Amino acid sequence: MTDTPFVHEIRVTWGDCDPAQIAYTARLPWFALDAINAWWEEHFDGEGWFQMEIDRNMGTPFVNLSMDFSSPVTPRHRLMCETYPTRLGEKSITFGMKAYQNNVLCFTGSFTCVFTQADVFKSMPAPDRIRKVVEPLIREG
Amino acid sequence: MTDTPFVHEIRVTWGDCDPAQIAYTARLPWFALDAINAWWEEHFDGEGWFQMEIDRNMGTPFVNLSMDFSSPVTPRHRLMCETYPTRLGEKSITFGMKAYQNNVLCFTGSFTCVFTQADVFKSMPAPDRIRKVVEPLIREG
Amino acid sequence: MTDTPFVHEIRVTWGDCDPAQIAYTARLPWFALDAINAWWEEHFDGEGWFQMEIDRNMGTPFVNLSMDFSSPVTPRHRLMCETYPTRLGEKSITFGMKAYQNNVLCFTGSFTCVFTQADVFKSMPAPDRIRKVVEPLIREG
Amino acid sequence: MTDTPFVHEIRVTWGDCDPAQIAYTARLPWFALDAINAWWEEHFDGEGWFQMEIDRNMGTPFVNLSMDFSSPVTPRHRLMCETYPTRLGEKSITFGMKAYQNNVLCFTGSFTCVFTQADVFKSMPAPDRIRKVVEPLIREG
Repeated sequence: MTDTPFVHEIRVTWGDCDPAQIAYTARLPWFALDAINAWWEEHFDGEGWFQMEIDRNMGTPFVNLSMDFSSPVTPRHRLMCETYPTRLGEKSITFGMKAYQNNVLCFTGSFTCVFTQADVFKSMPAPDRIRKVVEPLIREG
Repeated sequence: MTDTPFVHEIRVTWGDCDPAQIAYTARLPWFALDAINAWWEEHFDGEGWFQMEIDRNMGTPFVNLSMDFSSPVTPRHRLMCETYPTRLGEKSITFGMKAYQNNVLCFTGSFTCVFTQADVFKSMPAPDRIRKVVEPLIREG
Repeated sequence: MTDTPFVHEIRVTWGDCDPAQIAYTARLPWFALDAINAWWEEHFDGEGWFQMEIDRNMGTPFVNLSMDFSSPVTPRHRLMCETYPTRLGEKSITFGMKAYQNNVLCFTGSFTCVFTQADVFKSMPAPDRIRKVVEPLIREG
Repeated sequence: MTDTPFVHEIRVTWGDCDPAQIAYTARLPWFALDAINAWWEEHFDGEGWFQMEIDRNMGTPFVNLSMDFSSPVTPRHRLMCETYPTRLGEKSITFGMKAYQNNVLCFTGSFTCVFTQADVFKSMPAPDRIRKVVEPLIREG
C-alpha cells in the first residue's frame, strides 16, 4: 500500500491540438487510456495491456467510460493524470482519473473494464495475483 | 422535421484495430466525434466544426462524454452511427448515439457540448438559426 | 484491366487539423495508408489488410514510404487519393499516390510493401492470385 | 555544439499496435514527428511547434518525408529516436532520424521542412536565432 498516488505524465504536442489551439476532445480518452495502461505497467512489473494479452492470455476490455471536461488541455504544460482503482468487482475493475495541467483540473473520468480470457474473449473473475495488488489501492471515486 | 434518423457510416480498418483484433477502445470516442461532426455538416449545409469555428467564430467544446460498449467493433462491417440531439439547453446541446455493425449494437453514448464564442472561448446561448433546426430533431436519449 | 484510376475519398475533419488550420502532417501518411487499404478492398472482393492477415495468413508490411507535400489539406473539400501499383517485384509491391482537393494536388507518395506469411512474419513471393490482378493495373510512378 | 546526439524516447503501447502485434505503420511517421517536435523543444527553451506558431508567428511545414522500415516496433521496449539536422538551406531545414528499440534499428528517416511566416503561410528565410543553434549541430544524413 502506498500513500503516493500514481500519476502518469503526458507530453501534449502541436499534433494533439485542433484549430481551437487546444487538445482535440477525441485525444483526451486516448490520453486517459494511456494513463490506465501505464498504471498497469507500474503495478505489474512493466506489464501493460500488450504483455497481459500476448504473454498471459488475459484482456481487460472496456465496458464503460465517462469523462467530464473542465479546462482545456494545451502543450503549454505536461498533463498529469492521477489514476487509481475505485472498485474491484468479481469480474470487473473501475478506474478513476483526475488530470491536471499546471495544477488546474482539466478533466476527470471513470472507466470500467471486465477481465477476459483473451483467446476466447470470455469474461472471467479477476485473478488473485491482480486482486492482491489492486485491493489496497482502491479509493473513493 | 424528419422521421429518418441520421446515420453516419464509418469504414473501420486494420489500423483502427489493436492486437485483440478489434477496434482499440480509444478509437471509439474518435468515431463518435466524427459522427457528431457529420451530424452538424448534414444539418447545416456542410458546415462542421471547422467551418463553425473559422467562418462563424463559434465553438461547441465538449463538457462531458459517456459511452457504454456492448459489442466489439471490427473491420468486417461498416460502423453505422445513429446520431441525434437529445436535449437543447440555453447554452448547451446533448447528443445521443447508437452505433451498430451488421445490426448488432456496438456502443451507445451521450455527449454534451456548450456553445462558445470561439475567439474568446466564452460560453454563449445557442444561436436561433441552430435552435430552429435542432428543436424538431430532439428525441429521447 | 481498367482505364479508370482507383480513387479513395477521405472526409477530412476538424479533428485532423492542427492549430495552423490544416491537416496535421502526421495524418497524411495515415490517410495514404487508408487509401492503400481501400485499394486492396476494391480489387480483392472487400478484403483489406484485416482479412488478408486474419483469414489468409498473409501480411504486406511496409519497408519504405516517401511523400512530397505540395498544398495543405483542409476540411473544405474531400481528399481524393488516386492510388495505383507502380511495380510488382518477386516479393514486393510498390504503390504510387496522387492526392487532390478541389483538383489541386496536395501530395504525392510512393509506398513499398513486402509480402509475408503472417504467422511467422517471413517474406514470401507474391501469390499468383494477387499477381494476376495487379499486373494489368501497373502504371508509371 | 555537443557530441551527445539528441534522442527522444517514445513509450509504445498496445493502442499503437495493429493485429499483427506491432506498431501500425501509420503511427511511425507520427512518432517521428513527435521526435522532431521534441528536438525543437530541447534546443529552443521548450518551444516546439505550438509555441513557434502561436507565440512567434512562425511555422515549419513539411515538404517531404521519407522513411525506411527495417525492424518492427513493439511495446516491449522504449523507442529511442535519434534526431538531428542534416542540412540547413536558405529557407528549409532537413532532419535525419535513426530509431532503435533495444539497440536494434527499427527505422530511419529524412524530413524536410520550410520556414514560413505563419499568419500568411508564406515561406521565409531561416531566422538567425535558429541558424545559430542549428548550424553546429548539422551532421551527415
